[in-house]
Amino acid sequence: MDIGKYVYDLAVEAKAGARALAKAPSSRKNLALVKMAEALKDRASELVSENKKDIEYAAKKGLSKALIDRLTLNEKRIDEMSQGLVEVAQLPDPVGEITKMWQRPNGMSVGRMRVPIGVIGIIYESRPNVTADATSLCLKAGNAVILRGGSEAINSNKAIVSILRDVARGQGLHPGAVTFIGIPDREAIMEMLKLEGIVDLIIPRGGEGLIRTVTENSRIPVLKHYKGVCHVFVDRDADPAMAEEICFNAKVQRPGTCNAMETMLVDEPISKSFLPKMLKRYEGAGVAVRGCPKAVAIYANAAEVKEEDYYREYLDLVLNVRIVADMDEAIEHIAKYSSAHTDSIVTMNYERAMRFLKEVDSSAVLVNASTRLNDGYQFGLGAEIGISTDKIHARGPMGLEELTCTKFIVFGSGQLRE
Amino acid sequence: MDIGKYVYDLAVEAKAGARALAKAPSSRKNLALVKMAEALKDRASELVSENKKDIEYAAKKGLSKALIDRLTLNEKRIDEMSQGLVEVAQLPDPVGEITKMWQRPNGMSVGRMRVPIGVIGIIYESRPNVTADATSLCLKAGNAVILRGGSEAINSNKAIVSILRDVARGQGLHPGAVTFIGIPDREAIMEMLKLEGIVDLIIPRGGEGLIRTVTENSRIPVLKHYKGVCHVFVDRDADPAMAEEICFNAKVQRPGTCNAMETMLVDEPISKSFLPKMLKRYEGAGVAVRGCPKAVAIYANAAEVKEEDYYREYLDLVLNVRIVADMDEAIEHIAKYSSAHTDSIVTMNYERAMRFLKEVDSSAVLVNASTRLNDGYQFGLGAEIGISTDKIHARGPMGLEELTCTKFIVFGSGQLRE
Repeated sequence: MDIGKYVYDLAVEAKAGARALAKAPSSRKNLALVKMAEALKDRASELVSENKKDIEYAAKKGLSKALIDRLTLNEKRIDEMSQGLVEVAQLPDPVGEITKMWQRPNGMSVGRMRVPIGVIGIIYESRPNVTADATSLCLKAGNAVILRGGSEAINSNKAIVSILRDVARGQGLHPGAVTFIGIPDREAIMEMLKLEGIVDLIIPRGGEGLIRTVTENSRIPVLKHYKGVCHVFVDRDADPAMAEEICFNAKVQRPGTCNAMETMLVDEPISKSFLPKMLKRYEGAGVAVRGCPKAVAIYANAAEVKEEDYYREYLDLVLNVRIVADMDEAIEHIAKYSSAHTDSIVTMNYERAMRFLKEVDSSAVLVNASTRLNDGYQFGLGAEIGISTDKIHARGPMGLEELTCTKFIVFGSGQLRE
Repeated sequence: MDIGKYVYDLAVEAKAGARALAKAPSSRKNLALVKMAEALKDRASELVSENKKDIEYAAKKGLSKALIDRLTLNEKRIDEMSQGLVEVAQLPDPVGEITKMWQRPNGMSVGRMRVPIGVIGIIYESRPNVTADATSLCLKAGNAVILRGGSEAINSNKAIVSILRDVARGQGLHPGAVTFIGIPDREAIMEMLKLEGIVDLIIPRGGEGLIRTVTENSRIPVLKHYKGVCHVFVDRDADPAMAEEICFNAKVQRPGTCNAMETMLVDEPISKSFLPKMLKRYEGAGVAVRGCPKAVAIYANAAEVKEEDYYREYLDLVLNVRIVADMDEAIEHIAKYSSAHTDSIVTMNYERAMRFLKEVDSSAVLVNASTRLNDGYQFGLGAEIGISTDKIHARGPMGLEELTCTKFIVFGSGQLRE
């Protein structure tokens, strides 16, 4: 099989799909999404039986229980996937919005109109629900999608895509709006990453290794985050009770997520009053603490942190604790070790809150709130296709607007260049 | 010499410069720009004498007169360069602007704050004034710049950079804010393009070959346009006098620019009334016409256009003319051959104007105005660092705002993730 040709042909179909979709009115896109949601529920048994093939194969290959769980589709998960499509249908359509329009001295009006990006390649790993989630967001924003899921979920993904495409066709949308790389070869990804001029954007979702491979090999713009090494700085003027709740929530509420805290920075003047109670509470929740020498002196149960630990995303109930001399040291620490994903300060001091907000350069900087809140739904974007720590195009949670770009439009009456 | 190390060290200096510059208040940046403008004028004789070295070398190498002209710095050009810096100083500072802020049901305020991108690499060709122009825009938007000019202008560029850095230091800015790759080896560009994580954005300006090389080799996001293959479609309901002026201006006013028209599309029903007079006027201005068979039948002086001509950016007094059956054919032609830079329709028909505006997917789409108006100054952005035909981050003329990104900021009062 000529993998290069296979992927190229798919991308050309997607490009035709994108051109057609860019013209589709909201009402048609929304109806298609609702019908897709219904079809996923109606054909749930088909999905479950295709999913079984993936699970059996995964079990045979000896994949971990956690991975098999992530892979599994059951009625509840299919319902949630279906509900997600309905919610995206209900969001406002970003396409066609004129974000600004102004008048020039020569009488012409110049404005910016939001338009779809075109063809978006989504590369992801095991969870099959991403197939429907990513499709719904791309489609709503007028983009064709090329899906490339993990090989371990290939039967499930094929079944989902087949349902989505059936509906797309039935609703008069170009089937190229939803395309799927149905071969497991890694070469297919590499071929897609060369298709500059046909594919407009790549969004990889998954482990750091996958994302680095994609970024290093792509000629197409990539939006991504490698990892989330997030910090909370407890300032000397923090409300201690609030600081405790925020630090507990940021670490414990769901430690396996990219916006969970990995390092807690504590201002020296309050370290002796704040840390013992806080660390006791962590202990009760099973958090293993790795402390700087000063922290270990306060809390003997802590292991000693190594410098490389400060770069690590544990995704687990493990926490670095460092006592810093002042906010300058905290900001320096974050500038050096943070992945620029999410960093928070807890303080009642106005001046330091404002300085932290300004000087910390991360996709989201919070005052007196848990890092776990950096999320498209929590921030009110309606939905998210991922979080970007890039500085180009989109930074932080990416919703529907981030799946569009703008073009300049001009209403003239015969204006010329003098 | 270890070129990799040389470029790496420069980039690290630029990154330090960027961190410092991000905190600099507008007043300091503006004062530095004004002082730079003064210093360029005060030290004009130094610039002219360094520039002479480049010109002599270029003459010895047998470079074309046009290229030597582009290379030349004289008092008038130094004045213009200086004036450009003063104008950028007068523009509003985009950094720190909160573009939007909203309230969430849990009481936290979420907003987007405009921040600098960081370190921007500018790769350009012969004109030394780009050195000062690009520096001023990057610096105003809080970014450190790594400049890499054409080897034929290396003495001129070094002299300009040395003046700019002297002023930066004197004004208390980190000298890493303005850095310059002072070796002519092409390898230096390749080394810079690998520095993901240190350099945040690359903007190449110059010929298509240079830009393709940069894009294919960069792991860092690139903003660029390859070329400008721009169209004017003269609709059957155009005002003939307006259409004539717009088409003449778009081709003749300055044919060597990226937003000059390369192909004129004429709606068949008016082709016989519109074309003879129009083409006669072009003839008077020395425009060589390449026409489709129907156009050649009307205007015998036209050569026959070949299909590959429709992809060409002539940058010269050469024009393709094609008669199309209707607007559908015009839109199809543009979708196929346009470089998605600038496309214009001339019409008094409301419905077709709106449809063209919506369906043509270019960085700027104009109704009843010359393509030559797609420009940062003309559109009111104050200045431009280039035009992008990309769909990610910036599309169309790029001004100061396009040299920033946004981060999310949150004002909380103890909010947690439930």
